[in-house]
Amino acid sequence: MKVGIIMGSKSDWPTMQHAAEMLDRFNVPYETKVVSAHRTPHLLAEYAETAHERGIKVIIAGAGGAAHLPGMTAAFTSVPVLGVPVQSRALKGMDSLLSIVQMPKGVAVGTLAIGDAGAANAGLLAAQIIGTQDATVMAAVDAFRKEQTDTVLDNPNPAEDA
Amino acid sequence: MKVGIIMGSKSDWPTMQHAAEMLDRFNVPYETKVVSAHRTPHLLAEYAETAHERGIKVIIAGAGGAAHLPGMTAAFTSVPVLGVPVQSRALKGMDSLLSIVQMPKGVAVGTLAIGDAGAANAGLLAAQIIGTQDATVMAAVDAFRKEQTDTVLDNPNPAEDA
Amino acid sequence: MKVGIIMGSKSDWPTMQHAAEMLDRFNVPYETKVVSAHRTPHLLAEYAETAHERGIKVIIAGAGGAAHLPGMTAAFTSVPVLGVPVQSRALKGMDSLLSIVQMPKGVAVGTLAIGDAGAANAGLLAAQIIGTQDATVMAAVDAFRKEQTDTVLDNPNPAEDA
Amino acid sequence: MKVGIIMGSKSDWPTMQHAAEMLDRFNVPYETKVVSAHRTPHLLAEYAETAHERGIKVIIAGAGGAAHLPGMTAAFTSVPVLGVPVQSRALKGMDSLLSIVQMPKGVAVGTLAIGDAGAANAGLLAAQIIGTQDATVMAAVDAFRKEQTDTVLDNPNPAEDA
Amino acid sequence: MKVGIIMGSKSDWPTMQHAAEMLDRFNVPYETKVVSAHRTPHLLAEYAETAHERGIKVIIAGAGGAAHLPGMTAAFTSVPVLGVPVQSRALKGMDSLLSIVQMPKGVAVGTLAIGDAGAANAGLLAAQIIGTQDATVMAAVDAFRKEQTDTVLDNPNPAEDA
Amino acid sequence: MKVGIIMGSKSDWPTMQHAAEMLDRFNVPYETKVVSAHRTPHLLAEYAETAHERGIKVIIAGAGGAAHLPGMTAAFTSVPVLGVPVQSRALKGMDSLLSIVQMPKGVAVGTLAIGDAGAANAGLLAAQIIGTQDATVMAAVDAFRKEQTDTVLDNPNPAEDA
Amino acid sequence: MKVGIIMGSKSDWPTMQHAAEMLDRFNVPYETKVVSAHRTPHLLAEYAETAHERGIKVIIAGAGGAAHLPGMTAAFTSVPVLGVPVQSRALKGMDSLLSIVQMPKGVAVGTLAIGDAGAANAGLLAAQIIGTQDATVMAAVDAFRKEQTDTVLDNPNPAEDA
Amino acid sequence: MKVGIIMGSKSDWPTMQHAAEMLDRFNVPYETKVVSAHRTPHLLAEYAETAHERGIKVIIAGAGGAAHLPGMTAAFTSVPVLGVPVQSRALKGMDSLLSIVQMPKGVAVGTLAIGDAGAANAGLLAAQIIGTQDATVMAAVDAFRKEQTDTVLDNPNPAEDA
Repeated sequence: MKVGIIMGSKSDWPTMQHAAEMLDRFNVPYETKVVSAHRTPHLLAEYAETAHERGIKVIIAGAGGAAHLPGMTAAFTSVPVLGVPVQSRALKGMDSLLSIVQMPKGVAVGTLAIGDAGAANAGLLAAQIIGTQDATVMAAVDAFRKEQTDTVLDNPNPAEDA
Repeated sequence: MKVGIIMGSKSDWPTMQHAAEMLDRFNVPYETKVVSAHRTPHLLAEYAETAHERGIKVIIAGAGGAAHLPGMTAAFTSVPVLGVPVQSRALKGMDSLLSIVQMPKGVAVGTLAIGDAGAANAGLLAAQIIGTQDATVMAAVDAFRKEQTDTVLDNPNPAEDA
Repeated sequence: MKVGIIMGSKSDWPTMQHAAEMLDRFNVPYETKVVSAHRTPHLLAEYAETAHERGIKVIIAGAGGAAHLPGMTAAFTSVPVLGVPVQSRALKGMDSLLSIVQMPKGVAVGTLAIGDAGAANAGLLAAQIIGTQDATVMAAVDAFRKEQTDTVLDNPNPAEDA
Repeated sequence: MKVGIIMGSKSDWPTMQHAAEMLDRFNVPYETKVVSAHRTPHLLAEYAETAHERGIKVIIAGAGGAAHLPGMTAAFTSVPVLGVPVQSRALKGMDSLLSIVQMPKGVAVGTLAIGDAGAANAGLLAAQIIGTQDATVMAAVDAFRKEQTDTVLDNPNPAEDA
Repeated sequence: MKVGIIMGSKSDWPTMQHAAEMLDRFNVPYETKVVSAHRTPHLLAEYAETAHERGIKVIIAGAGGAAHLPGMTAAFTSVPVLGVPVQSRALKGMDSLLSIVQMPKGVAVGTLAIGDAGAANAGLLAAQIIGTQDATVMAAVDAFRKEQTDTVLDNPNPAEDA
Repeated sequence: MKVGIIMGSKSDWPTMQHAAEMLDRFNVPYETKVVSAHRTPHLLAEYAETAHERGIKVIIAGAGGAAHLPGMTAAFTSVPVLGVPVQSRALKGMDSLLSIVQMPKGVAVGTLAIGDAGAANAGLLAAQIIGTQDATVMAAVDAFRKEQTDTVLDNPNPAEDA
Repeated sequence: MKVGIIMGSKSDWPTMQHAAEMLDRFNVPYETKVVSAHRTPHLLAEYAETAHERGIKVIIAGAGGAAHLPGMTAAFTSVPVLGVPVQSRALKGMDSLLSIVQMPKGVAVGTLAIGDAGAANAGLLAAQIIGTQDATVMAAVDAFRKEQTDTVLDNPNPAEDA
Repeated sequence: MKVGIIMGSKSDWPTMQHAAEMLDRFNVPYETKVVSAHRTPHLLAEYAETAHERGIKVIIAGAGGAAHLPGMTAAFTSVPVLGVPVQSRALKGMDSLLSIVQMPKGVAVGTLAIGDAGAANAGLLAAQIIGTQDATVMAAVDAFRKEQTDTVLDNPNPAEDA
């Protein structure tokens, strides 16, 4: 496994699956697991502390509301952690975003956008990080980037179906 | 010790000392300690998990920014946790507030106002909680409440010094 | 009765019933009542002022918009008050949250999250407060906490139904 | 007395004096008093309930943070209540504004701007309300309005001192 | 006519009709009209400048988004103006609220809550203002207030239909 | 072509078509194209750098979220750029608005309202800009303005269908 | 005069002078005047309605708080109006921004950033608009743009004084 | 060079130097440069497009307001980009944060906190990313993390100087 995708609740999966789908596209192996900062704090500690030795290069953590999972994961490991703010019901993910991104000096979380786009981009950024040492993955990322550029270039008319 | 006052950093003390001063007023014994969710997560787990057996009845936790300390403390203990959002530099404590108050179902933090008033009220509410089983403390709270009422009643003129 | 659950309007019940359900789980006896700060201020005063002598240990107050119920209840009693911001139509509970949590020094409300999760956690925190003097309730809280931890541990696969 | 100016704390006076100064300008008699919703709720009830019989035509209430004074005053009287959100430290009066303006159907507060301008305009609007039945006051308001118009017209150059 | 109810667009009527219904309840005569600050600025000027001589005692103005109608109406008359922020599509009325309430010193708008409750309360506050000089209207307001109090008192059980 | 209407994605067309419809009304010729700042940055540079020589007088650029298209277009040309914040899913266009309007000194974007109204007004403002040198277009704008004024004047009753 | 720079108050001049300075740089003639939407609404109407016949090609309007000046100017003329949100005391210009930018369909304001940068960019955008028909002005804008590019290119070291 | 630190203006250096200081601590070589998305878009394209071939493993980009630098850098390269929202004057960095973090699907920026802490953490996260393939850097990160943990553990008394 190169990437660990964790989330605070099963209800986060419809968002977080976009990270998994992006990694599938680049053939980057990953694992997915429900790990709750608030309900299973010991599991979180164990998961994060063993990540490096298990060969995990990047952890993607998604959570909503008072979203402590990404920051607490980062507290237990030096493996890079990417955070995905899941859209919350009342405050639409603004609470999730601020809880994840406003980390104090000394423990870092690279935060992506609220919701599905953020989860997909967490998968993409994880692949880019792995691509810094794996030319095959970097080539796959470059190909994906070129493909999405071509899709726009080939379909310039906004009023017409692609 | 009846109350534990913890905070993420020494820089939170100017805020959190207002909780201590309020408890002094009611003769409620307390301890104060720097416990950082992000820098000392194991200390946090140990502090919270041993709180009940050490006789702690209420924990007051203050933090700013992505303020994970109150919620993670609550994740490790069933002792009631009160959270104080410390005013942050850029977002003035709105990030601290949302990170503390928007906890998911199943792990609760009773949140007070941003800054000094919130810290003082955390001390007051801790005393009220202890007062539910300690008539002396409840009487001290009632006396404080009466005193602050009288201060207003005795000085009704806003344009005159009290 | 150990806990009083009050709310500004019948329309708050779908939210506030989550507090009642949580207390049911712990066998903590409670009463529920519509008490409006704005429409029945005298009832509010009477309810709050007699709470202590009626044996109420914690009051849970839920309201939306310019949510004055929790703070005004706290103004009339030294019994601990927990506030639940009910999600409002236009501002999604941000108005309710700020109206409840930003209390001035000297009168405290322990505030929970906006909406259903906040109401459930108000019930949980009330039980934790009662649990500081009632070992049976504390044991029930601990059991609930263990159960929700086990539910996560036993169902780690986010893409599979629990 | 035609107008009652009340505020939650002496610290609100630097803001609320702008209401008084505006009424002075129109020779509308008024009284000023510290009345705290949270610290002196019984005084608030008594003040509001006796306002009509004491001849008060408009009440101006200023408060900051979880600003319950205007709404609770309106809960105890049918005399029109105008609310002034005092600028708070952390959230700059956004909390004060939402706590005052977002009243539920059935109890109304006419809310002015945050801070000094809002307090001055509360005095002005109170005079306009009294002016609906008092031609002298209405004439004074009209004269003030004309004067401020002339000040602009006579000093059209922004880069020059008036 | 005692009250003028104006709004920027026919699409504001579903909100503003709540003001009309409230005035109906108190038998306060009113007129309703579409007056757009941006599309019919001359009509707005004429409407506001003739309001006093036509016997209008209070103007209720509702608008959404960059809601200039209430403030510009107040710019053209000394008759008291109450503003209703209509809920906007993207920003849910926060834009409407700030555009109405944050008036500069010297021209005042008494602002009510966003949406239906605010419109109803504008009708109520208009009646209270008229009630300062009309005992019949004041008595009708008092009766309405008592009725809504009784409705709460008579139906205290939140889980039961009223 | 006098006006270029560009947008970051085909999904922006339901919003941006309102700009096109407005220009149709004034017989101002325009082109529409999908140009993505993030997916086709070279196309963006080329589009903007050749706009002036192709006779484009105004560019209307719409985008949502971290909406970089308007500002980056302005970075590559001295042709006036108008920006339309497309309503985003989680933050309802507040992110789009701030990303477009808060440009640093030296590169300007004239920003319109969030969503459909903003797109329509971008078309209108583009026509007004062209109208500063084209009397026919200015006359068409004046006629449109008069027509919408008359529509309000002819249908003053808010409770009646136009 | 090609450009009219108006503002609601002399206190807006420290912000709005940045628009004037930018126009000076391009030798675009302009006039400056205090015109208050709320205190001098008739002057505003007259100013806007005569702008076209006086040869004004663009109006720049700056205001703070409930900033109605830009939108009301646009209501009275088809000359393009650019709006500058002046930074307000309590809400830091967020109120000014929303009051200016969220205009309804049919009356447009091209809005710039809050504060000094926005005022400077209003001057720049006005010059760009005039530049669409005046090659000398367009060349001056291009030269300014090239100069600011060169300043960055010539001083790439962030830790060294330029 | 392993890391490129770029920023939109020299005025961002007091913030961004915290990224450089963090990299110094880990002996990770880096370069610093002013690259403005708006004033030097061609330099930005060239910088980003040549980063990979120059051996850059991570780019740290800081900007304020409508902060387009991080996202546009990511548009031109597959090298991982970390974004630092610089605190802006009016909106305190909320505009910077949303402009950086809310990227659309397909182009990712890992975003850190607003201001100094975010810049320091960008340096830390860059080192962690490099550490995934460089054991010396990872060891240096681990040592830094242990050191900051020990600093807390050795100075637990909040009221005493460290």
